[in-house]
Amino acid sequence: MVAGTLLYAQSGGVTAVINASASAVITEARARKVKVLAARNGILGALREDLIDTSKESAAAIRALAHTPGGAFGSCRYKLKSLEVDSAKYERLLEVFKAHDVRWFLYNGGNDSADTALKVSQLAKAYDYPLTCIGVPKTVDNDLAVTDTCPGFGSAAKYTAVSVREAALDVAAMAETSTKVFVYEAMGRHAGWLAAAAGLAGKNPDEAPQIILFPERAYDEAAFLAQVKKVVAKVGWCVVVASEGIQYADGRFVADAGGGKDSFGHTQLGGVASYLAGRVKNELGMKVHWTLPDYLQRSARHLASKSDWEQAQAAGKAAVQFALKGQNAVMPVIVRTSNAPYKWRIEAAPLSKVANHEKKMPNSFLRKDGYGITAAARTYLEPLIRGEAYPPYGRDGLPNYVTLKNVAVKKKLADWEG
Amino acid sequence: MVAGTLLYAQSGGVTAVINASASAVITEARARKVKVLAARNGILGALREDLIDTSKESAAAIRALAHTPGGAFGSCRYKLKSLEVDSAKYERLLEVFKAHDVRWFLYNGGNDSADTALKVSQLAKAYDYPLTCIGVPKTVDNDLAVTDTCPGFGSAAKYTAVSVREAALDVAAMAETSTKVFVYEAMGRHAGWLAAAAGLAGKNPDEAPQIILFPERAYDEAAFLAQVKKVVAKVGWCVVVASEGIQYADGRFVADAGGGKDSFGHTQLGGVASYLAGRVKNELGMKVHWTLPDYLQRSARHLASKSDWEQAQAAGKAAVQFALKGQNAVMPVIVRTSNAPYKWRIEAAPLSKVANHEKKMPNSFLRKDGYGITAAARTYLEPLIRGEAYPPYGRDGLPNYVTLKNVAVKKKLADWEG
Repeated sequence: MVAGTLLYAQSGGVTAVINASASAVITEARARKVKVLAARNGILGALREDLIDTSKESAAAIRALAHTPGGAFGSCRYKLKSLEVDSAKYERLLEVFKAHDVRWFLYNGGNDSADTALKVSQLAKAYDYPLTCIGVPKTVDNDLAVTDTCPGFGSAAKYTAVSVREAALDVAAMAETSTKVFVYEAMGRHAGWLAAAAGLAGKNPDEAPQIILFPERAYDEAAFLAQVKKVVAKVGWCVVVASEGIQYADGRFVADAGGGKDSFGHTQLGGVASYLAGRVKNELGMKVHWTLPDYLQRSARHLASKSDWEQAQAAGKAAVQFALKGQNAVMPVIVRTSNAPYKWRIEAAPLSKVANHEKKMPNSFLRKDGYGITAAARTYLEPLIRGEAYPPYGRDGLPNYVTLKNVAVKKKLADWEG
Repeated sequence: MVAGTLLYAQSGGVTAVINASASAVITEARARKVKVLAARNGILGALREDLIDTSKESAAAIRALAHTPGGAFGSCRYKLKSLEVDSAKYERLLEVFKAHDVRWFLYNGGNDSADTALKVSQLAKAYDYPLTCIGVPKTVDNDLAVTDTCPGFGSAAKYTAVSVREAALDVAAMAETSTKVFVYEAMGRHAGWLAAAAGLAGKNPDEAPQIILFPERAYDEAAFLAQVKKVVAKVGWCVVVASEGIQYADGRFVADAGGGKDSFGHTQLGGVASYLAGRVKNELGMKVHWTLPDYLQRSARHLASKSDWEQAQAAGKAAVQFALKGQNAVMPVIVRTSNAPYKWRIEAAPLSKVANHEKKMPNSFLRKDGYGITAAARTYLEPLIRGEAYPPYGRDGLPNYVTLKNVAVKKKLADWEG
């Protein structure tokens, strides 16, 4: 074995393919005879010295990881603050890294994780500890800077477009005597990438989704209701896709408007789709149904995009290669070199250019009326949902997802009092 | 061509595989040189003499119909009452049938449709009109009597079990610092068949879903919250599957309790999952997410069960065979002849035994504590979700679902004044 340990951790909301990156990381490291530990529950595991020995997992389990959704080692929502404010935590990390001879730290996550990886690399440098930090990109939100797209997004996008197309066929069949309006709530608090992906379900404005509501456009209720009425008059029914992050012109989230009191006086949980559905029902008197897929959209490995899956693995593999070459404080990003045929390659981008930046949706992706996507958006989005990458299924009709053994490494330090 | 016309119509909520039955009906009829018309929007199209000439559809389109969800000819929620009350409508139907030389009427739906087909057959007999009426089974609710299962249910069941398994992996990965409880709302107003199918996602009580709430058991909020607390204490997180039809001991639907007023005073649309999620959040102070898949669960052709798909086609084919043999007022039903290996065959059952009956879930399928399914339930359910039957996908990453031309037949009668 090569001297030194590679530490891998997962961070933030998990996706259908983050484990594909993990699988590629471990596979590549094994090929290069590098020992891989994984932190349990992301950076928390590193702070707690709760580390998993991945060498206890069989080659078959690591292969199966590539088709298993969720985060196999546990993830976390835990943001480290600045080096000054959280100095004790950063120093504890370094202490743990030293204790386990961690020379390479791979943090698989979004903006915050890139920021954490960057700060850890800065601290190591300040302490003269030889450490190479790599960010591995992951997020269904597609809001990471520099990279053309983020592993995780393409599969959630495919789930969204396919689900909207299927639900639309249902609504179209029933509209004469039943549901006329169907509202689909897509993830995306700040940017409407997944809502935009729904636009791939239809090729022309009369095909579903006839209305997409983006957080990039102020929600104007009167205009929205008038548009629904217009679509139903013309098409006979209407599918609305709403981003969870849509806001009124004054910046209030529509989702928050939905939360009131139930008939027992309990606080209701908000939701954009249920709110919009209620408005359509009350104001237009139309029968309406709505869906909130929630976590289903980011964990639907059964409907992963092959492009996305390949990129998740390529990012994991490149992360190990960059790490072993000592390319410190970088992230493997996807560079698109051609739309038709779709071609891409992996490059190393400085974490400083990724951390704390947010990729917005270009204005040119939104149709002038704000209710749909443009040809430019299709050109960008379509390759990302291309191809199928089915998991294997068992005789029981269910996907064969793997559960790792996750054997803990013996602790060498005193308990963390964080 | 054989003299006479076969009329096919779709009724009630559509499914992922009702078009597979339609495809099999048309394919079998074509092989036997029988002309097939389809009523647009179910029985309404028959009443309106709005009939579709299926001979205008290519063989490729009819093949593609077998992997297309929704209802290709349009469906309806329209219940004909008794022969006495709705005599004018039944007589109109007979008039339309005579005008188009309809000798065989195939109605693809649930209980109500079986009832309609039965009544039409009775009327034809009373009028001495030579007509053979066949019910073709369809419903995601699995509540049809006599048949072992209903085409449509197996695919919705597979969607449910797979989605719950995937979401559980997400929750398990995030529970340490984020969502601890996830609530999944399954269709089923009167019987918990789909909620029970979710139980296939886990093999032991600590695997998700740890709690299933069935309409067959009174909802006891204190007991439910205590159970959630217990599961989270033991497992670290909890996935709850709730049937939309769960009721309090006094018979009130929990879904109705959820409907209150939002912060603007608008009526909120109810929902079991959002209600339960709110209770967990407020009473246990745990972070909670929920999903309402709604129509996605019954239109998810991308995740169809192969067993279900084959049965839907077998039912369609048998319906034509029974019709041409003059087996009047029957429905092709599925008879299970063996669990291991799973074997089944199609038989003809009298519509009178199906119409207005409802298949309940056997008590032996529910675990004693009411929160899970038994081995007997697994033995029954598991073969129904077995096998995958993927639709073909295009270069655009989306399933190639077909839209039929649905060319109308020239009307021969005066407009219906219904």
